[in-house]
Amino acid sequence: MTSWVSRLFPRNACTLATSSKNQGHEDCHRQHKAYGYFLPIQTRWQDNDQYGHVNNVVYYSYFDTIINHYLIRYCGLKTSLLTSPMVGFMVTSQCTYHSPIGFPQIPVAALAVEKVGHSSVHYRLALFPPKHTEEPPSVDHHDLCHGFFFGHPKLAQFDALACTTGSSVHVFVNPATSKPAGLPENFRRGLLKLMSPASV
Amino acid sequence: MTSWVSRLFPRNACTLATSSKNQGHEDCHRQHKAYGYFLPIQTRWQDNDQYGHVNNVVYYSYFDTIINHYLIRYCGLKTSLLTSPMVGFMVTSQCTYHSPIGFPQIPVAALAVEKVGHSSVHYRLALFPPKHTEEPPSVDHHDLCHGFFFGHPKLAQFDALACTTGSSVHVFVNPATSKPAGLPENFRRGLLKLMSPASV
Amino acid sequence: MTSWVSRLFPRNACTLATSSKNQGHEDCHRQHKAYGYFLPIQTRWQDNDQYGHVNNVVYYSYFDTIINHYLIRYCGLKTSLLTSPMVGFMVTSQCTYHSPIGFPQIPVAALAVEKVGHSSVHYRLALFPPKHTEEPPSVDHHDLCHGFFFGHPKLAQFDALACTTGSSVHVFVNPATSKPAGLPENFRRGLLKLMSPASV
Amino acid sequence: MTSWVSRLFPRNACTLATSSKNQGHEDCHRQHKAYGYFLPIQTRWQDNDQYGHVNNVVYYSYFDTIINHYLIRYCGLKTSLLTSPMVGFMVTSQCTYHSPIGFPQIPVAALAVEKVGHSSVHYRLALFPPKHTEEPPSVDHHDLCHGFFFGHPKLAQFDALACTTGSSVHVFVNPATSKPAGLPENFRRGLLKLMSPASV
Repeated sequence: MTSWVSRLFPRNACTLATSSKNQGHEDCHRQHKAYGYFLPIQTRWQDNDQYGHVNNVVYYSYFDTIINHYLIRYCGLKTSLLTSPMVGFMVTSQCTYHSPIGFPQIPVAALAVEKVGHSSVHYRLALFPPKHTEEPPSVDHHDLCHGFFFGHPKLAQFDALACTTGSSVHVFVNPATSKPAGLPENFRRGLLKLMSPASV
Repeated sequence: MTSWVSRLFPRNACTLATSSKNQGHEDCHRQHKAYGYFLPIQTRWQDNDQYGHVNNVVYYSYFDTIINHYLIRYCGLKTSLLTSPMVGFMVTSQCTYHSPIGFPQIPVAALAVEKVGHSSVHYRLALFPPKHTEEPPSVDHHDLCHGFFFGHPKLAQFDALACTTGSSVHVFVNPATSKPAGLPENFRRGLLKLMSPASV
Repeated sequence: MTSWVSRLFPRNACTLATSSKNQGHEDCHRQHKAYGYFLPIQTRWQDNDQYGHVNNVVYYSYFDTIINHYLIRYCGLKTSLLTSPMVGFMVTSQCTYHSPIGFPQIPVAALAVEKVGHSSVHYRLALFPPKHTEEPPSVDHHDLCHGFFFGHPKLAQFDALACTTGSSVHVFVNPATSKPAGLPENFRRGLLKLMSPASV
Repeated sequence: MTSWVSRLFPRNACTLATSSKNQGHEDCHRQHKAYGYFLPIQTRWQDNDQYGHVNNVVYYSYFDTIINHYLIRYCGLKTSLLTSPMVGFMVTSQCTYHSPIGFPQIPVAALAVEKVGHSSVHYRLALFPPKHTEEPPSVDHHDLCHGFFFGHPKLAQFDALACTTGSSVHVFVNPATSKPAGLPENFRRGLLKLMSPASV
């Protein structure tokens, strides 16, 4: 399936979505190498809407999941309101939908960190569909628990071009005071691991 | 509650979200008068995430709902895959979260149309929280069925500043061919009614 | 639309769903008078699944919403994990689907309390679709904030027979100890108001 | 964590949930051997509700997913409304929640078929949490695409007792006529494979 966005909105949609970046950068953000971390996503029956594809809202839930998964698994985030010294709130998010997917496909989500501030983190995100093959899909998802990093051979099982790209910004605050919380060193270190691809 | 975005990201977040528009325009988009159509939104217990506020993903579902509601109620959209000559797919969407809300609050969603193309529609969206008052909220929601238009006295029951703003772009395609479908005249007329506020 | 359950499963489904109750009781639970409290439910575009009706999962979210709404509004429940002396966990829930509904219909949810224990509450639930009329639905939903009680004239705008019936059991525990929490007197009083219809 | 249900409702909850089955059967339904097919379930950040656990509604979405996954993968179900000769509607469903789970845990869903009628299928379902170990969970989920069957060594990585059990009934109808559709032979064959455990 060709891209609705590129076919219909060679400029407008990209402008809306990525504004200050040119078409070249947009295309670049649809490639594996623009991302450092990958997590397979299990679609659910309920994700499909009346038109038989994953509803546009649900992609944000996939991206929310890979972000929180990475923060908990690799950056030491504690998410309990009762004990955590900081909680993350989204301040902005966006998606561009290039082509549809649907249950029961199993795509892979991708995460890059574009910027780490005092209490904020800027993410870039993408979703890559499984390659279309004759036989029923047989991709081996070694780990929903650990995900995998750029360079892993598993990436070959997914399309080279993202079906959806996005970005979002987290601000971390102290749940008691609602004031911005400086990011701890080990947390920051986990995030910086995903920054190099951003320099592409 | 003050705005996280304006406090923390006087530039960045707005740049991310609205890019080519300056801060003045961004503020303008947080006001009632920037929108033509309004629909109260019933939050659900499940909308609140672990941090006790409506999860960032769920706002897109509110905006998806006011858009499809308006298209069905005022533009004659038929949504059955079996009989409809066209179905709408989102090609891009974005939100900026200025302050949180949570179940059981009842905010009002707002819709404006920025541009109507041959087969595409550009929307702007916002969510306004109910005014904070001493007594339990008693706003009269006359109609979840019909919504209401700008100028209606009910708007006085909601905050003057949006807690969330967003935008999205629909492309309508023929479900049989997946090719862009020219928008019918009555459909286009319904959309044009929501365009004047965009000229603010 | 006739009932799938009654047509296809005059016994089995009811046995599955309500087991110790006979068909007469089951029919009784589909009527307005079996319930004390009512809350209009705003369906969302995303509620419809691939088959164009509200997905079976989503009904539980409607019922979760009317329960928590009533507990917060009429029983004084505080839901903040940081400050609340008790939180409710579901220990069992069930639904029987008699006929489908779909976005953008606006049904009304109904709640009865069957039993109040030391730390548990047994609920019965139903969903009534709006009456089918020639003109676009124009039901006046006075209050998503307050709901309304049995006897209110608004009920005439909804079908006499529920499209979905269900039940669930809440256990309230102390969030610090995870031990069952005795229900406070005012909380219990709020619940008892919805018990009389159960004696039908 | 001990079971709320067994602690608080040695009789009532089980009666509510499984009615005609005695406590012995209920316990039996919490064991691996009562199920024929297993599918790992990826929890999402959004699944957790305000109390930090997977919301009771979301379990139905897990069960909906394993059912449709099995029907598509092993029984040849086509789900496109435009081309499918039959679509499945739930007529009843229920869950009993024995102990909570939460994101980012990765439980495994389990499916058994209790009865195959002319156009209906009765399912039993369960969810088993990953075993609690010192190290971060490292369970190898070979296949979200194919699931696995009873007897597979992977089951050793999950708790022996289900945290949630449930059941549901599907009726298949012709989407054009809404009349019950006789189940095709290959479809029926796929379902019968999951029936033997039910005779436990």
